[in-house]
Formats: sequence, structure tokens, C-alpha cells
Amino acid sequence: MDYNQAALELHAKGPGKLTVQSLVPCKDKDALSTAYTPGVAEPCRKIVANPDDVYTYTLKGRTVAVVTNGTAVLGLGNIGPEAGLPVMEGKCVLFKEFGGVDAFPICLNAKTKEEVVAAVKAIAPTFGGINLEDIRSPECFEIEAELERDLDIPVFHDDQHGTAIIVLAGVLNALKVVGKRIEDVRIVQNGPGAAGTAIIHMLQVAGARHIIAVDEHGILVPGRPEGLDGHKAKLAEETNPEKLSGGLAEAIRGADVFIGTSIAGALTPELAATMAPDAIVFAMANPTPEIMPDQAKAAGIRVIGTGRSDFPNQVNNVLAFPGIFKGALSVRARDINPAMKMAAAKAIAGLIPDEELNEENILPKAFDPRVPEAVAAAVAQAARESGVARV
Amino acid sequence: MDYNQAALELHAKGPGKLTVQSLVPCKDKDALSTAYTPGVAEPCRKIVANPDDVYTYTLKGRTVAVVTNGTAVLGLGNIGPEAGLPVMEGKCVLFKEFGGVDAFPICLNAKTKEEVVAAVKAIAPTFGGINLEDIRSPECFEIEAELERDLDIPVFHDDQHGTAIIVLAGVLNALKVVGKRIEDVRIVQNGPGAAGTAIIHMLQVAGARHIIAVDEHGILVPGRPEGLDGHKAKLAEETNPEKLSGGLAEAIRGADVFIGTSIAGALTPELAATMAPDAIVFAMANPTPEIMPDQAKAAGIRVIGTGRSDFPNQVNNVLAFPGIFKGALSVRARDINPAMKMAAAKAIAGLIPDEELNEENILPKAFDPRVPEAVAAAVAQAARESGVARV
Repeated sequence: MDYNQAALELHAKGPGKLTVQSLVPCKDKDALSTAYTPGVAEPCRKIVANPDDVYTYTLKGRTVAVVTNGTAVLGLGNIGPEAGLPVMEGKCVLFKEFGGVDAFPICLNAKTKEEVVAAVKAIAPTFGGINLEDIRSPECFEIEAELERDLDIPVFHDDQHGTAIIVLAGVLNALKVVGKRIEDVRIVQNGPGAAGTAIIHMLQVAGARHIIAVDEHGILVPGRPEGLDGHKAKLAEETNPEKLSGGLAEAIRGADVFIGTSIAGALTPELAATMAPDAIVFAMANPTPEIMPDQAKAAGIRVIGTGRSDFPNQVNNVLAFPGIFKGALSVRARDINPAMKMAAAKAIAGLIPDEELNEENILPKAFDPRVPEAVAAAVAQAARESGVARV
Repeated sequence: MDYNQAALELHAKGPGKLTVQSLVPCKDKDALSTAYTPGVAEPCRKIVANPDDVYTYTLKGRTVAVVTNGTAVLGLGNIGPEAGLPVMEGKCVLFKEFGGVDAFPICLNAKTKEEVVAAVKAIAPTFGGINLEDIRSPECFEIEAELERDLDIPVFHDDQHGTAIIVLAGVLNALKVVGKRIEDVRIVQNGPGAAGTAIIHMLQVAGARHIIAVDEHGILVPGRPEGLDGHKAKLAEETNPEKLSGGLAEAIRGADVFIGTSIAGALTPELAATMAPDAIVFAMANPTPEIMPDQAKAAGIRVIGTGRSDFPNQVNNVLAFPGIFKGALSVRARDINPAMKMAAAKAIAGLIPDEELNEENILPKAFDPRVPEAVAAAVAQAARESGVARV
């Protein structure tokens, strides 16, 4: 199927992929007087008296903003807010179709970190949550941190945490398949950008103790002369307990898990062959992975996942974000905290019972209808238990 | 009917009154690959190559932001963005139900003029137009002016221009009924806030030469010691050609038209009785007008309009904004300029043929289905003729 031509036709039809519908027919004076003035003043007065009533009387509690400034859109790079709009509309479609969550695209003409933060803070009153999307690293880290700190609604950068949650789910199940424990395994993360960094932190929260991060200059280790500013200097401190130095070859030798968020072909069959027995590889470069599944198998890798739907074990963010926001909104959460993210990963992993787990089946399928429900329920419970639920 | 209780029930049902729907079912891999990655990259690339393609491939060209900071909501005052959300959702409902225009509420946590301007500029890429709503005067004037200057999509403060357009339509038809010309009549505008000021400017564009503005301190005249700062000093220069001073009593004596955007009872029967023969009154204070229709008639007023649906000649903004944005969006307009506003007023007035015009019938009814179509067609044509249409 020629997706490019089909996509142009589909997008020209709406045009676009979303529509705002009224839930209230306004065919007579009474309807108008109830949905609008004078009746509408009464819910306004209720919200003035009790600010949380905004969840009771408006769309806020079931609506998410999908926000970008267009600086890192898909594989297309810094294409700006207008050109990023089809992707954000698509994300909103997935929110609705998979999670039943109302989502609206907000493409920001905002280049600096400060401008993005100010704009999102300004629009927050309308929304029950903010899904940040396709914002370039390293700005995305500070933008998310500042918004999380200052807003009383969840802020979630899907490129970071969505991916990290699915990878953790896949790692947990793959480790069961090969019979290893997360506390013991040696993990190499190749490409510590937005997603890679979140993956590292998520694995650490889950108990991983031996993670080495590698970028285009080699292993992240304190004192490395090149490219070790900002979040990478911090990562170098937080990872690599033996303070190894060198390149991917030095990192990968004897490793149990490779997690690539880097570029096509980054993991050669020769390098893969130096990994430990029963090794696990997540090769998520798109559209061409760090290593092709057949090459990985030939090099002795036991479990391989990619970002692609035409291979087994697809790491697809749609497994996480619709259910995560569905769950967070259901309890009017103030935050999506690490406990909720961990609950989401475990819920996704738990959908495959132990007896069905095998090398080709460590993650549920994107269209498995149990996924958003299971994720939402787990996230809502974790929100309540961790004290960030309003109800 | 108890609108308050009915409104609470209606608003709790959604909750809220709007929903974002997907136009694209995503039930299989091909649908996902067309609406989202990898297919979605193709419309993105088209927009990069030709920025106007954002109108061809996204919701932008059929979607309006209804923006407030909640500083002047209905008669409720400065209640803030969350409490203003029911009103903004209601406005979006009217956009959709009356004009078929997709509209989404954006309630801004933005107190200063600068914050509002920055936020609206930031979110503009998603939208084909901006409807400003319930922003306090005098900030609303500068906010609108700055956004109009800097954005390449229409910016329209409905509280100002929507009201002004309907009032002009009503004045034009009322003058036909009483057989007077707009160039000749003496007009008193009582309450020159956001709406009043726009009404004055609109009447001037339509040819009115003798307008006197009156506020709580009396007639606006250059040199008046109290309350003559900002836009009122400018109004004092632009109106009142004889430079009359005094109060409403001095202004109203012999006037042909009274236009009230002030407070209940501001036009007493005694004052009304001093107007010229065949006088016209628009008494738009809500819910209680400046003078009740029966009192006005008893005082000799020939045509009276109010903001209320239970009297004849209702000045209802819903006659204008849905059709205005429908028309502006249909030609991908860069602006809603005075020519387009004038075209809208004339289209509304023109829906009542001369033979049907009378004292009780100078404006079409809110639910007249011809209104949005007629307004949209006239606005689109005026946009093309005045060079602000993209197509």
C-alpha cells in the first residue's frame, strides 16, 4: 500500500482528521438559554465557589492538549508548528480511537524553552492534561520539568515516557523468557536522547543496576572530553557503575540487553555476537532498526523487538498513552508520577500470561482492546495510592 | 423554565458541551499507517514545501479558537479562566450549531495584556481564526489591535464587533421604518465600553456624522476633568462635533437614536420623552434594559430593540459571528476588516425585505436559517474584494 498517496487523500478529505462536535443541540430558545446565556452563568458561579467544579461542569476533565512546537517531528526534524499539525491531529485521533480521550492539537509558535513553558501554562485551564510531543532534546527535559512543577494537571512527554513504559514492559517480559533478573543484567542504551534517557530512568526505577549509555562519541563516562554537557553529564554520573570508557564495542561485550534509540544499522551482527548468551535487543530506529531481526537471530540474540509492525514484539507508544491519560483523567490526577508509569508498564506486560510468553510474544498487539482498559485501571489505582488523585 | 437548574444538569451530563471526534476510524494497521506514521509524514512534507497547504491537509482552515482570560465574563465580571470555560464552550456550541464552524475554547491563565497577546500568538498555528471573548475593557482594544497587526489569520473580538454589526443592521432598518438618513440623525451612545466603542466606530463607517458618547461621568468631550483616559479621550475627539458637555439629559434632548450598552433603567421615560419625533432606542443592558419597551412606547419612542428574546427586535450576537467566521474561513481570510463587518451588517439587514419592515420587525430572528448563509456569502465576497482572501 502506498501510504504517502493514501495519506494525502485522507488528510485532504476533512480537511484534517478531527472535528469539534456540540453535545448540545440548539434548536430553540430554551436550549439556547440553557447552554448559553442566561443559564450558563450558573455553572460559572459554581466554579467560582468551588474551583474543582470545573471538572464537574466542563470538558476539562476529559480533554488533553497535544502540544508541540514542531522542533523534532517524527523523522522530519525541526519543521515548525504548522507542518507538525498533521502529526498532532493524528495523535489526537489515537487518543480518541484507542482511549476514548478527547484530545486537541496545540501547535505552538514558540521556539525557546521559555516561550513553550509560558504558552502551555497559559492554556492549561481548559485541559485535564498536557501531552508534550515532538519537542527537541534537550529543551524537552526542562520544559517538562518546569511544567510538571508548576501545573496542577498531568504533564507527560510521550516521546520520553511513553516509549520508556513500553520498553520496560517488553524488558520485563523478555527477561522472564530468558530467565534473568533485572537487578543482575548488564544493559546498554544506545542513543540517550529524549526517549533513551527516559528509558534509562525507568529501568532504574524498576531495579536495573548496571546500565551503560552510549552516544555518537562513545560511552557516557564522567570526564569524557566530547559532548558531555547538560543531561548527558548527569547520565554519566547516574549510569556506568564501573566507569567503563570506550565505544559501543566495549559497552556491548557481555551485555544482556541492548536498547537502541539511535540509527539504522548501529548494532552490527559482529557486535551483537559479542553479547552474553540469551541476549535481548530492542532496536527501535525507524524505519530501519539498529539491527534487522533475522540478523540479530543469526548473531545469537534470543529476543528482538523493534518499532515496526511487520516484525514481532513491536514497541508502539499507542499501547501506553491512551490508557495512561484515560486513567489519570478518571481520577482527575494532578500528575503522572513514576508510580503511575510503573503501573502502566506492569499492566502492559501483565496482559501476556506466563504460559503465552515466548521469544516472539513479549508485548500485546497495538489493537488488543484490553490494553487501554488495563493501563487506565492500573494508572488510576496508582494515582490514588500515591496521593495525586483528586477523586 | 428554571434555566439555572436545567443548566447545571445539562453541563454535568457531558460533562461540558463539546467533544473532539476523530474523522478517521483506526481499526487496522493500514488506517493507522495512513492517519499516523509513516503516512502522516507526507502531508507534513507538503506543508513544509508550501505553508498554505496547512489549509489543505489539516483542521486549521475550519477551526476557530474562542479565547478568553475570564476578566469580563457575561454579567459575572472577572471570574477567571476556569469559571469562564462554560461560557466559552457555549460559544463554541453556537459556532457549530449555527455556522457549522469547528470552535474550541481556550481559557487563558493570563492576566496582563502582554500575556494574552503572547499566548494567542503562540497558539495561532492551529487555528484559522481567533474569536476573542469576555476580555475586559480597555485591555481588549490593545489586545485585538496587536493581534490583528501581527497574525495572518482573522482576529475578532465578538463583544465589540459582533454587537456593533447587529446594532448597525438594526439601525439601518429602523431608519428605513422612520424615514430618516444615517447621515442626518443625532445618535447618543450610552456606555462606551468595548461594545459601545465598536458601535460608534461602525456607525461612523456607515456614514453617521453626529454621535455623542455618554458614560457615568457625562458626555465625552475634550478637556472633561474626570475619567477621560485612553480610548475615551480618543472617542471624545472623534465624536460630539458640537463639543456639547453635560449629562445624558443634555445629550438626549432632540436625539434621533439612543444606543445603550450601560445599565438597567439608564434611560428614564422622562429623558426618552425629550428625544426627537420618531426616535429609535436600542436598550441592550442585560437582563433589564435601559428602558422597558412598554415604557419607551409610552414615552413616544417609535422603534425599540433590546438584548432580550422575549421582546421584538432582539440584538443577538448569534446573528453575526457564526456566519462571519464561516465566510472568512471559506476564503482562508487573513483578516476580518471593516468592509467585511459592513457586509455582514448589510446582509443581516437585507434579510428583511422593505415590505416586511415595521416597528416590531427590524432584525431577523436568531433561529432564521438564512442568516449564517447570507452573512457568510457577503463576508466572503467582501474579503475577496478587499484583498484579504487567500483563495
